Amino acid sequence: MLYAKQGSGYVLRLEQGDDILKTLRQFAETKRIRAAFFEGIGSLYRARLGHYDFQETKTYKYETFNEDLEILSLSGNVSTMNRQALPHAHATLGRRDFSVIGGHLDDGSLANMVEVRLVMVPGTLEKARDVSVGLNLLQLRHKF
Amino acid sequence: MLYAKQGSGYVLRLEQGDDILKTLRQFAETKRIRAAFFEGIGSLYRARLGHYDFQETKTYKYETFNEDLEILSLSGNVSTMNRQALPHAHATLGRRDFSVIGGHLDDGSLANMVEVRLVMVPGTLEKARDVSVGLNLLQLRHKF
Amino acid sequence: MLYAKQGSGYVLRLEQGDDILKTLRQFAETKRIRAAFFEGIGSLYRARLGHYDFQETKTYKYETFNEDLEILSLSGNVSTMNRQALPHAHATLGRRDFSVIGGHLDDGSLANMVEVRLVMVPGTLEKARDVSVGLNLLQLRHKF
Repeated sequence: MLYAKQGSGYVLRLEQGDDILKTLRQFAETKRIRAAFFEGIGSLYRARLGHYDFQETKTYKYETFNEDLEILSLSGNVSTMNRQALPHAHATLGRRDFSVIGGHLDDGSLANMVEVRLVMVPGTLEKARDVSVGLNLLQLRHKF
Repeated sequence: MLYAKQGSGYVLRLEQGDDILKTLRQFAETKRIRAAFFEGIGSLYRARLGHYDFQETKTYKYETFNEDLEILSLSGNVSTMNRQALPHAHATLGRRDFSVIGGHLDDGSLANMVEVRLVMVPGTLEKARDVSVGLNLLQLRHKF
Repeated sequence: MLYAKQGSGYVLRLEQGDDILKTLRQFAETKRIRAAFFEGIGSLYRARLGHYDFQETKTYKYETFNEDLEILSLSGNVSTMNRQALPHAHATLGRRDFSVIGGHLDDGSLANMVEVRLVMVPGTLEKARDVSVGLNLLQLRHKF
Protein backbone atom coordinates (compact mmCIF):
# COMPACT_ATOMS: atom_id res chain seq x y z
CA MET A 1 0.00 0.00 0.00
CA LEU A 2 1.15 3.51 -0.82
CA TYR A 3 0.05 6.66 0.97
CA ALA A 4 0.52 10.39 1.41
CA LYS A 5 -0.64 12.66 4.20
CA GLN A 6 -2.66 15.51 2.75
CA GLY A 7 -4.48 18.03 4.92
CA SER A 8 -6.53 16.48 7.71
CA GLY A 9 -6.34 13.05 6.15
CA TYR A 10 -4.53 10.57 3.96
CA VAL A 11 -4.71 9.47 0.37
CA LEU A 12 -4.09 5.72 0.05
CA ARG A 13 -3.49 3.43 -2.91
CA LEU A 14 -3.88 -0.26 -2.13
CA GLU A 15 -1.94 -2.55 -4.43
CA GLN A 16 -2.42 -6.00 -5.94
CA GLY A 17 -2.97 -8.55 -3.17
CA ASP A 18 -3.47 -6.11 -0.27
CA ASP A 19 -6.15 -7.30 2.15
CA ILE A 20 -8.34 -4.20 2.14
CA LEU A 21 -9.74 -4.25 5.67
CA LYS A 22 -6.61 -5.65 7.29
CA THR A 23 -4.46 -3.00 5.62
CA LEU A 24 -6.81 -0.23 6.79
CA ARG A 25 -6.69 -1.66 10.33
CA GLN A 26 -2.89 -1.94 10.41
CA PHE A 27 -2.47 1.52 8.89
CA ALA A 28 -4.87 3.10 11.42
CA GLU A 29 -3.10 1.27 14.24
CA THR A 30 0.35 2.38 13.11
CA LYS A 31 -0.67 6.01 12.54
CA ARG A 32 -2.82 6.04 15.72
CA ILE A 33 -5.93 6.98 13.74
CA ARG A 34 -8.83 6.38 16.10
CA ALA A 35 -11.63 8.42 14.49
CA ALA A 36 -11.95 8.73 10.73
CA PHE A 37 -14.25 8.29 7.76
CA PHE A 38 -13.23 7.06 4.32
CA GLU A 39 -14.50 6.70 0.75
CA GLY A 40 -12.84 4.79 -2.04
CA ILE A 41 -13.10 3.35 -5.54
CA GLY A 42 -11.04 0.78 -7.41
CA SER A 43 -11.09 -2.93 -8.11
CA LEU A 44 -10.63 -6.19 -6.21
CA TYR A 45 -10.27 -9.84 -7.19
CA ARG A 46 -11.60 -11.48 -4.04
CA ALA A 47 -14.51 -10.15 -2.01
CA ARG A 48 -15.58 -11.62 1.29
CA LEU A 49 -19.00 -10.12 1.95
CA GLY A 50 -21.28 -10.33 4.95
CA HIS A 51 -24.99 -9.76 5.50
CA TYR A 52 -26.29 -9.29 9.04
CA ASP A 53 -29.62 -10.78 10.11
CA PHE A 54 -31.10 -8.32 12.63
CA GLN A 55 -34.53 -9.90 12.86
CA GLU A 56 -33.77 -13.49 13.77
CA THR A 57 -30.32 -15.01 14.08
CA LYS A 58 -28.34 -11.83 14.87
CA THR A 59 -25.38 -13.26 13.01
CA TYR A 60 -23.52 -12.54 9.79
CA LYS A 61 -23.87 -14.79 6.79
CA TYR A 62 -20.70 -14.71 4.64
CA GLU A 63 -19.87 -15.49 1.05
CA THR A 64 -16.66 -15.16 -0.95
CA PHE A 65 -16.58 -14.01 -4.58
CA ASN A 66 -13.49 -14.75 -6.67
CA GLU A 67 -13.60 -12.52 -9.74
CA ASP A 68 -12.50 -9.06 -10.89
CA LEU A 69 -15.02 -6.65 -9.41
CA GLU A 70 -15.03 -2.88 -9.81
CA ILE A 71 -15.33 -1.20 -6.42
CA LEU A 72 -18.17 1.23 -7.11
CA SER A 73 -18.12 2.45 -3.54
CA LEU A 74 -16.07 1.59 -0.49
CA SER A 75 -17.54 3.51 2.40
CA GLY A 76 -16.93 3.40 6.12
CA ASN A 77 -15.23 4.59 9.23
CA VAL A 78 -12.46 3.90 11.72
CA SER A 79 -13.31 3.88 15.41
CA THR A 80 -11.63 2.48 18.51
CA MET A 81 -12.60 -0.55 20.56
CA ASN A 82 -10.57 -1.99 23.42
CA ARG A 83 -7.89 0.59 22.53
CA GLN A 84 -7.50 -0.83 19.03
CA ALA A 85 -8.36 0.70 15.68
CA LEU A 86 -11.55 -0.82 14.25
CA PRO A 87 -12.37 -0.17 10.58
CA HIS A 88 -15.94 -0.82 9.40
CA ALA A 89 -16.57 -0.87 5.66
CA HIS A 90 -19.34 -1.64 3.20
CA ALA A 91 -18.69 -2.18 -0.49
CA THR A 92 -20.72 -2.01 -3.70
CA LEU A 93 -19.09 -4.13 -6.42
CA GLY A 94 -19.59 -4.20 -10.18
CA ARG A 95 -19.37 -7.41 -12.18
CA ARG A 96 -18.15 -7.87 -15.73
CA ASP A 97 -21.76 -7.86 -17.02
CA PHE A 98 -22.32 -4.57 -15.06
CA SER A 99 -24.64 -6.23 -12.53
CA VAL A 100 -23.85 -5.38 -8.92
CA ILE A 101 -23.30 -7.24 -5.65
CA GLY A 102 -22.39 -5.90 -2.23
CA GLY A 103 -22.32 -6.20 1.52
CA HIS A 104 -20.34 -5.71 4.68
CA LEU A 105 -16.65 -6.05 3.70
CA ASP A 106 -14.75 -8.61 5.74
CA ASP A 107 -11.11 -9.62 6.10
CA GLY A 108 -10.03 -11.68 3.12
CA SER A 109 -11.08 -9.12 0.47
CA LEU A 110 -8.06 -8.67 -1.78
CA ALA A 111 -7.36 -5.55 -3.83
CA ASN A 112 -6.39 -5.19 -7.43
CA MET A 113 -6.07 -1.45 -6.83
CA VAL A 114 -8.03 0.88 -4.55
CA GLU A 115 -7.89 4.67 -4.22
CA VAL A 116 -9.04 5.83 -0.78
CA ARG A 117 -9.51 9.22 0.85
CA LEU A 118 -9.45 8.86 4.64
CA VAL A 119 -10.31 11.95 6.70
CA MET A 120 -9.68 12.14 10.42
CA VAL A 121 -12.41 13.43 12.69
CA PRO A 122 -11.41 15.55 15.71
CA GLY A 123 -11.85 13.75 19.02
CA THR A 124 -12.46 10.05 19.51
CA LEU A 125 -14.99 7.59 18.18
CA GLU A 126 -15.49 4.67 20.56
CA LYS A 127 -17.33 1.42 19.83
CA ALA A 128 -18.57 -1.08 22.40
CA ARG A 129 -20.21 -4.47 22.12
CA ASP A 130 -24.01 -4.35 22.38
CA VAL A 131 -25.18 -7.80 23.43
CA SER A 132 -28.85 -7.31 22.55
CA VAL A 133 -28.08 -6.10 19.00
CA GLY A 134 -25.11 -8.45 18.60
CA LEU A 135 -22.89 -5.76 17.08
CA ASN A 136 -20.21 -3.24 18.00
CA LEU A 137 -21.95 0.13 18.21
CA LEU A 138 -20.67 3.71 18.17
CA GLN A 139 -20.86 5.27 21.62
CA LEU A 140 -22.06 8.83 21.03
CA ARG A 141 -22.64 11.40 23.74
CA HIS A 142 -26.07 12.82 22.94
CA LYS A 143 -29.56 11.41 22.45
CA PHE A 144 -31.86 12.98 19.83
CA MET B 1 -30.80 8.50 17.29
CA LEU B 2 -27.48 9.26 18.97
CA TYR B 3 -25.02 11.92 17.89
CA ALA B 4 -21.85 13.80 18.69
CA LYS B 5 -20.52 17.05 17.26
CA GLN B 6 -17.04 16.52 15.91
CA GLY B 7 -15.15 19.17 13.98
CA SER B 8 -17.17 20.83 11.24
CA GLY B 9 -19.84 18.17 11.37
CA TYR B 10 -21.66 15.48 13.28
CA VAL B 11 -21.39 11.74 13.70
CA LEU B 12 -24.82 10.12 13.96
CA ARG B 13 -25.99 6.64 14.86
CA LEU B 14 -29.58 5.89 13.93
CA GLU B 15 -31.22 3.20 16.00
CA GLN B 16 -33.78 0.45 15.45
CA GLY B 17 -36.99 1.94 14.08
CA ASP B 18 -35.69 5.45 13.30
CA ASP B 19 -37.15 6.81 10.06
CA ILE B 20 -33.91 7.66 8.28
CA LEU B 21 -34.95 10.67 6.20
CA LYS B 22 -37.37 12.08 8.76
CA THR B 23 -34.72 11.86 11.50
CA LEU B 24 -32.18 13.63 9.30
CA ARG B 25 -34.75 16.35 8.54
CA GLN B 26 -35.71 16.88 12.19
CA PHE B 27 -32.08 16.85 13.29
CA ALA B 28 -31.09 19.40 10.62
CA GLU B 29 -34.09 21.55 11.56
CA THR B 30 -33.28 21.45 15.28
CA LYS B 31 -29.57 22.14 14.80
CA ARG B 32 -30.26 24.75 12.08
CA ILE B 33 -28.15 22.85 9.56
CA ARG B 34 -29.00 24.34 6.18
CA ALA B 35 -26.07 23.27 4.01
CA ALA B 36 -24.41 19.89 4.49
CA PHE B 37 -23.36 16.67 2.80
CA PHE B 38 -23.47 13.22 4.34
CA GLU B 39 -22.30 9.63 3.79
CA GLY B 40 -23.37 6.59 5.74
CA ILE B 41 -23.41 2.81 6.03
CA GLY B 42 -25.49 0.43 8.11
CA SER B 43 -28.64 -1.63 7.80
CA LEU B 44 -32.39 -1.06 7.50
CA TYR B 45 -35.46 -3.31 7.63
CA ARG B 46 -37.82 -1.23 5.52
CA ALA B 47 -36.79 0.72 2.44
CA ARG B 48 -39.11 3.03 0.56
CA LEU B 49 -37.36 3.69 -2.73
CA GLY B 50 -38.21 6.04 -5.58
CA HIS B 51 -37.23 6.21 -9.23
CA TYR B 52 -37.83 9.43 -11.16
CA ASP B 53 -38.95 9.37 -14.77
CA PHE B 54 -37.32 12.40 -16.44
CA GLN B 55 -38.24 11.51 -20.00
CA GLU B 56 -41.99 11.09 -19.86
CA THR B 57 -44.12 11.31 -16.73
CA LYS B 58 -41.83 13.52 -14.58
CA THR B 59 -43.01 11.70 -11.50
CA TYR B 60 -41.56 9.30 -8.98
CA LYS B 61 -42.50 5.64 -8.95
CA TYR B 62 -42.23 4.18 -5.44
CA GLU B 63 -41.81 0.72 -4.00
CA THR B 64 -41.39 -0.53 -0.43
CA PHE B 65 -39.08 -3.40 0.49
CA ASN B 66 -39.57 -5.15 3.85
CA GLU B 67 -36.41 -7.13 4.60
CA ASP B 68 -33.03 -6.70 6.30
CA LEU B 69 -30.88 -4.80 3.81
CA GLU B 70 -27.27 -3.74 4.32
CA ILE B 71 -26.89 -0.03 3.53
CA LEU B 72 -23.89 -0.15 1.18
CA SER B 73 -24.04 3.59 0.64
CA LEU B 74 -26.28 6.34 1.94
CA SER B 75 -25.27 9.49 0.15
CA GLY B 76 -26.79 12.92 0.00
CA ASN B 77 -27.10 16.49 1.14
CA VAL B 78 -29.11 18.88 3.26
CA SER B 79 -30.28 22.13 1.68
CA THR B 80 -32.96 24.68 2.54
CA MET B 81 -36.29 25.27 0.83
CA ASN B 82 -38.99 27.63 2.09
CA ARG B 83 -36.77 28.18 5.15
CA GLN B 84 -36.91 24.51 6.08
CA ALA B 85 -34.18 21.88 6.09
CA LEU B 86 -34.49 19.55 3.10
CA PRO B 87 -32.46 16.32 3.11
CA HIS B 88 -32.00 14.49 -0.20
CA ALA B 89 -30.62 10.95 -0.05
CA HIS B 90 -29.96 8.01 -2.36
CA ALA B 91 -29.28 4.53 -1.05
CA THR B 92 -27.62 1.36 -2.34
CA LEU B 93 -28.89 -1.69 -0.47
CA GLY B 94 -27.54 -5.24 -0.21
CA ARG B 95 -29.83 -8.25 0.05
CA ARG B 96 -29.22 -11.49 1.90
CA ASP B 97 -28.09 -13.17 -1.37
CA PHE B 98 -25.67 -10.22 -1.94
CA SER B 99 -27.66 -8.88 -4.89
CA VAL B 100 -28.30 -5.14 -4.74
CA ILE B 101 -31.26 -2.77 -5.06
CA GLY B 102 -31.41 0.98 -4.71
CA GLY B 103 -33.02 4.31 -5.41
CA HIS B 104 -34.04 7.69 -4.08
CA LEU B 105 -34.67 7.19 -0.33
CA ASP B 106 -38.07 8.36 0.81
CA ASP B 107 -39.78 8.82 4.18
CA GLY B 108 -40.81 5.47 5.60
CA SER B 109 -37.35 3.88 5.39
CA LEU B 110 -36.67 2.42 8.84
CA ALA B 111 -33.21 1.83 10.28
CA ASN B 112 -31.78 -1.19 11.98
CA MET B 113 -28.62 0.83 12.59
CA VAL B 114 -26.94 3.52 10.49
CA GLU B 115 -23.60 5.28 10.99
CA VAL B 116 -23.54 8.69 9.31
CA ARG B 117 -20.92 11.40 8.90
CA LEU B 118 -22.59 14.74 8.16
CA VAL B 119 -20.33 17.66 7.26
CA MET B 120 -21.58 21.23 7.16
CA VAL B 121 -20.71 23.40 4.17
CA PRO B 122 -19.99 27.10 4.79
CA GLY B 123 -22.74 29.38 3.51
CA THR B 124 -26.20 28.34 2.39
CA LEU B 125 -27.54 25.82 -0.10
CA GLU B 126 -30.97 26.82 -1.38
CA LYS B 127 -33.37 24.67 -3.39
CA ALA B 128 -36.34 25.88 -5.39
CA ARG B 129 -39.07 24.10 -7.31
CA ASP B 130 -38.38 23.82 -11.06
CA VAL B 131 -41.71 23.31 -12.77
CA SER B 132 -40.30 22.17 -16.12
CA VAL B 133 -38.08 19.49 -14.53
CA GLY B 134 -40.62 18.67 -11.82
CA LEU B 135 -38.01 18.62 -9.04
CA ASN B 136 -36.49 20.80 -6.35
CA LEU B 137 -33.16 22.03 -7.71
CA LEU B 138 -30.08 23.52 -6.03
CA GLN B 139 -29.84 27.24 -6.75
CA LEU B 140 -26.13 27.87 -7.40
CA ARG B 141 -24.63 31.23 -8.21
CA HIS B 142 -22.41 30.57 -11.24
CA LYS B 143 -22.91 29.07 -14.68
CA PHE B 144 -20.16 26.96 -16.24
CA MET C 1 -23.56 23.08 -15.18
CA LEU C 2 -24.05 25.39 -12.20
CA TYR C 3 -21.66 25.76 -9.30
CA ALA C 4 -20.78 27.67 -6.15
CA LYS C 5 -17.54 27.79 -4.21
CA GLN C 6 -18.18 26.85 -0.60
CA GLY C 7 -15.40 26.37 1.92
CA SER C 8 -12.54 24.21 0.67
CA GLY C 9 -14.57 22.92 -2.23
CA TYR C 10 -17.38 23.39 -4.71
CA VAL C 11 -20.99 22.39 -4.94
CA LEU C 12 -21.97 21.52 -8.52
CA ARG C 13 -25.28 20.85 -10.23
CA LEU C 14 -24.99 19.20 -13.62
CA GLU C 15 -27.89 19.84 -15.93
CA GLN C 16 -29.77 17.92 -18.60
CA GLY C 17 -27.35 16.77 -21.30
CA ASP C 18 -24.10 17.58 -19.49
CA ASP C 19 -21.43 14.92 -20.11
CA ILE C 20 -20.60 14.10 -16.49
CA LEU C 21 -16.92 13.17 -16.76
CA LYS C 22 -16.10 15.71 -19.47
CA THR C 23 -17.74 18.50 -17.47
CA LEU C 24 -15.78 17.52 -14.34
CA ARG C 25 -12.57 17.48 -16.40
CA GLN C 26 -13.19 20.88 -17.99
CA PHE C 27 -14.25 22.41 -14.68
CA ALA C 28 -11.16 21.09 -12.90
CA GLU C 29 -8.98 22.32 -15.77
CA THR C 30 -10.54 25.80 -15.74
CA LYS C 31 -10.37 26.17 -11.95
CA ARG C 32 -6.90 24.56 -11.80
CA ILE C 33 -8.13 21.84 -9.45
CA ARG C 34 -5.40 19.21 -9.43
CA ALA C 35 -6.17 17.23 -6.26
CA ALA C 36 -9.73 16.64 -5.11
CA PHE C 37 -12.27 14.01 -4.12
CA PHE C 38 -15.96 14.09 -4.93
CA GLU C 39 -19.27 12.40 -4.08
CA GLY C 40 -22.58 12.89 -5.86
CA ILE C 41 -26.14 11.70 -6.38
CA GLY C 42 -28.69 12.40 -9.09
CA SER C 43 -29.90 10.88 -12.32
CA LEU C 44 -28.60 10.28 -15.85
CA TYR C 45 -30.15 9.11 -19.10
CA ARG C 46 -27.08 7.63 -20.76
CA ALA C 47 -24.39 5.70 -18.92
CA ARG C 48 -21.20 4.53 -20.54
CA LEU C 49 -19.73 2.03 -18.10
CA GLY C 50 -16.43 0.19 -18.10
CA HIS C 51 -15.15 -2.93 -16.38
CA TYR C 52 -11.42 -3.56 -16.21
CA ASP C 53 -9.98 -7.06 -16.60
CA PHE C 54 -6.91 -7.18 -14.32
CA GLN C 55 -6.30 -10.92 -14.61
CA GLU C 56 -6.09 -11.48 -18.33
CA THR C 57 -6.59 -8.86 -21.00
CA LYS C 58 -5.72 -5.73 -18.95
CA THR C 59 -8.28 -3.78 -20.94
CA TYR C 60 -11.64 -2.15 -20.30
CA LYS C 61 -14.83 -3.68 -21.64
CA TYR C 62 -17.46 -0.98 -22.24
CA GLU C 63 -21.23 -0.92 -22.51
CA THR C 64 -23.71 1.92 -22.95
CA PHE C 65 -27.09 2.03 -21.21
CA ASN C 66 -29.78 4.35 -22.56
CA GLU C 67 -32.42 4.75 -19.85
CA ASP C 68 -33.25 6.95 -16.85
CA LEU C 69 -31.01 5.71 -14.06
CA GLU C 70 -30.85 7.10 -10.53
CA ILE C 71 -27.25 7.83 -9.58
CA LEU C 72 -27.07 6.07 -6.20
CA SER C 73 -23.42 6.97 -5.83
CA LEU C 74 -20.94 8.88 -7.96
CA SER C 75 -17.60 8.60 -6.26
CA GLY C 76 -14.11 9.53 -7.32
CA ASN C 77 -11.20 11.89 -7.45
CA VAL C 78 -9.38 14.45 -9.56
CA SER C 79 -5.64 14.07 -10.02
CA THR C 80 -3.12 15.43 -12.51
CA MET C 81 -1.38 13.62 -15.34
CA ASN C 82 0.83 15.26 -17.94
CA ARG C 83 -0.13 18.59 -16.35
CA GLN C 84 -3.81 18.03 -17.09
CA ALA C 85 -6.72 17.45 -14.73
CA LEU C 86 -7.75 13.78 -14.69
CA PRO C 87 -11.08 12.87 -13.08
CA HIS C 88 -11.68 9.21 -12.18
CA ALA C 89 -15.23 8.20 -11.25
CA HIS C 90 -17.23 5.07 -10.49
CA ALA C 91 -21.02 5.04 -10.48
CA THR C 92 -23.77 2.88 -8.96
CA LEU C 93 -27.00 3.27 -10.92
CA GLY C 94 -30.59 2.35 -10.06
CA ARG C 95 -33.04 1.11 -12.66
CA ARG C 96 -36.78 1.65 -12.79
CA ASP C 97 -37.35 -1.81 -11.25
CA PHE C 98 -34.89 -0.86 -8.45
CA SER C 99 -32.26 -3.33 -9.66
CA VAL C 100 -28.77 -1.86 -9.88
CA ILE C 101 -25.95 -1.69 -12.42
CA GLY C 102 -22.59 0.05 -12.22
CA GLY C 103 -19.00 0.42 -13.28
CA HIS C 104 -16.19 2.79 -14.15
CA LEU C 105 -17.86 5.93 -15.57
CA ASP C 106 -16.59 6.93 -18.99
CA ASP C 107 -17.03 9.93 -21.27
CA GLY C 108 -20.43 9.81 -22.94
CA SER C 109 -22.43 9.51 -19.70
CA LEU C 110 -25.12 12.21 -19.89
CA ALA C 111 -26.79 13.80 -16.87
CA ASN C 112 -30.41 14.42 -16.18
CA MET C 113 -29.34 16.20 -12.98
CA VAL C 114 -26.43 15.54 -10.64
CA GLU C 115 -25.59 17.15 -7.28
CA VAL C 116 -21.87 16.91 -6.50
CA ARG C 117 -19.71 17.95 -3.56
CA LEU C 118 -16.09 18.29 -4.66
CA VAL C 119 -13.49 18.90 -1.96
CA MET C 120 -9.95 19.98 -2.74
CA VAL C 121 -7.06 18.20 -1.05
CA PRO C 122 -4.00 20.28 -0.07
CA GLY C 123 -0.96 19.57 -2.24
CA THR C 124 -0.92 17.66 -5.49
CA LEU C 125 -2.10 14.24 -6.60
CA GLU C 126 -0.12 12.95 -9.56
CA LYS C 127 -0.96 9.96 -11.74
CA ALA C 128 1.40 8.16 -14.08
CA ARG C 129 0.94 5.32 -16.55
CA ASP C 130 1.88 1.91 -15.15
CA VAL C 131 2.61 -0.36 -18.12
CA SER C 132 2.48 -3.64 -16.19
CA VAL C 133 -0.94 -2.87 -14.66
CA GLY C 134 -2.19 -1.06 -17.76
CA LEU C 135 -3.68 1.82 -15.78
CA ASN C 136 -2.91 5.34 -14.60
CA LEU C 137 -1.90 5.04 -10.95
CA LEU C 138 -1.66 7.58 -8.13
CA GLN C 139 1.95 8.38 -7.32
CA LEU C 140 2.11 8.56 -3.52
CA ARG C 141 5.22 9.30 -1.52
CA HIS C 142 5.27 6.61 1.16
CA LYS C 143 5.22 2.81 1.19
CA PHE C 144 3.30 0.99 3.95
